[in-house]
Amino acid sequence: MNSITVSEVGPRDGLQSIDSLMPTAAKLEWIALEHRAGVREIEVGSFVSPKLLPQMADTAEVVRGAVELPGLTVAVLVPNQRGCEAAIAAGAHKISLPLSVSETHSLKNLRRDHGAMLDEIRACQALVDAEPAERRPHFEVGLSTAFGCSIEGPVAPEQVFGLAARVLDLGVAEIGLSDTTGMGNPAQLETLVTGIWRRMGDGVLTGVHLHNTRGQGLANVLKAVELGITTIDSSLGGLGGCPFAPGASGNIVTEDLVFLLESMGYSTGIDLEVLLQVRHAVADLLPGESWYGFAAEAGLPRGWRPAAASVA
Amino acid sequence: MNSITVSEVGPRDGLQSIDSLMPTAAKLEWIALEHRAGVREIEVGSFVSPKLLPQMADTAEVVRGAVELPGLTVAVLVPNQRGCEAAIAAGAHKISLPLSVSETHSLKNLRRDHGAMLDEIRACQALVDAEPAERRPHFEVGLSTAFGCSIEGPVAPEQVFGLAARVLDLGVAEIGLSDTTGMGNPAQLETLVTGIWRRMGDGVLTGVHLHNTRGQGLANVLKAVELGITTIDSSLGGLGGCPFAPGASGNIVTEDLVFLLESMGYSTGIDLEVLLQVRHAVADLLPGESWYGFAAEAGLPRGWRPAAASVA
Repeated sequence: MNSITVSEVGPRDGLQSIDSLMPTAAKLEWIALEHRAGVREIEVGSFVSPKLLPQMADTAEVVRGAVELPGLTVAVLVPNQRGCEAAIAAGAHKISLPLSVSETHSLKNLRRDHGAMLDEIRACQALVDAEPAERRPHFEVGLSTAFGCSIEGPVAPEQVFGLAARVLDLGVAEIGLSDTTGMGNPAQLETLVTGIWRRMGDGVLTGVHLHNTRGQGLANVLKAVELGITTIDSSLGGLGGCPFAPGASGNIVTEDLVFLLESMGYSTGIDLEVLLQVRHAVADLLPGESWYGFAAEAGLPRGWRPAAASVA
Repeated sequence: MNSITVSEVGPRDGLQSIDSLMPTAAKLEWIALEHRAGVREIEVGSFVSPKLLPQMADTAEVVRGAVELPGLTVAVLVPNQRGCEAAIAAGAHKISLPLSVSETHSLKNLRRDHGAMLDEIRACQALVDAEPAERRPHFEVGLSTAFGCSIEGPVAPEQVFGLAARVLDLGVAEIGLSDTTGMGNPAQLETLVTGIWRRMGDGVLTGVHLHNTRGQGLANVLKAVELGITTIDSSLGGLGGCPFAPGASGNIVTEDLVFLLESMGYSTGIDLEVLLQVRHAVADLLPGESWYGFAAEAGLPRGWRPAAASVA
């Protein structure tokens, strides 16, 4: 049975998209609840300026709490070397730095061109390499706007391949692909994933961050896991990135993703019935936010069995 | 370039799920607008008892109007021989009869067991065969609850194969598969489709009717078209089958489906920009109904190109 790691990004991607400030204890309760449901990788926050994102000001404390949970990979996002230092100091297991393939987007979002971003990445990799092996975090660069940019429009696969190669040349072990704008389709995903694997080796790309902005999230996931991608990002209740009407979520809904994977026989380690209870508990921790998801609304089908049960 | 027929079921499946009674002229305007956007198959109504479904009482008149549109395949649903007679008399091009794989569902829904339903199907096939070749409609049997039943629970593939064989033995040329309950997943779809093709030949199954109840609609579509299925049902604005909260639609949204297919390079013949305008026009014809869809909410991405443009 194939295993897929569902990487929960709600405490980072979700919370930084909403106005509510969630107390640290509530964040840690959310993380503990998902961990109890079987989630084994959670992006718990980002090390960015607290002036820009006050929701993330307590990320170091959240990391220090989350690393106590057995078997949990505690992931964080960092925009630069300073964030990477803080992430290492806090003890994060996995550090991701987003690099926009669209240079226009990079300049607008982080006010840095590709050269400046690559300098930050080089510095981060050096920081990580300086850590002793037994507590060295995993460092990866997420190629955002890889499927298209809302400013530049279409992004050519060659742009993605070229930038991926420049990142890997800096000694970075792994890159990710992000459909930041929800413009991607499964054929494009196949072109990008297999193109990178063919040029740079299978090990350099194992995870994707997809959005459901135009309803294509799970179709893209299906293609990804069939190709052999083993880590998929998603957000509980689709929290975060809801720029449009109800239903038009940015993030893939964790519950719907687990339903897809477990129904197909991919093992996620997550107990979906427990996860659906967690959804309600976390919603209580974030009053006033809108939650989203088809599987939760419809409920599990009569007689539905997860992957492990089908094999047994 | 592969072509896919998007079969619009809104005027039947959508309208019969809502309380509003749409006037005949408005139905014909809807159908004409979608035809103008390039849709070439529309299920325009069903020949059922007007006492049960008053929304469908004018189906004969709608068929007679719709067949005037050039190149449009006018499809209808019938539950029995009497409906089939009416469909033939009205001049429908394509007649579908739903047969529930779950006998419990069949008894509850149509108060007929499989034996009685197969008698109706035999009678329908005889009626169709009696028509002169030049105006003989296409007759097919849609196997509903093929992916699971909300009463019986899981439905074994062998049940689907067995019932499909019994239908084909009656001389029916084609069957369809319906995920009536939104319980299906892509692995199951592959098992069912390839199982039928292997046992009964590729030509007997070319279309699927999938639901998005648990958010799996387009993932299932992706698997279907990659296997070689060439007709996919969907509903404009996801109208119909909305038993849950907003967003938890039953039907696949036509606009999102066309976005998936055209983005991937499958030609649908549909101009998505025009279709998104049609959505608004039809919404005006049905005040008070809720419309749904990710692509429409988010809008087409900057620089998005349909399949034909990518090839040119």
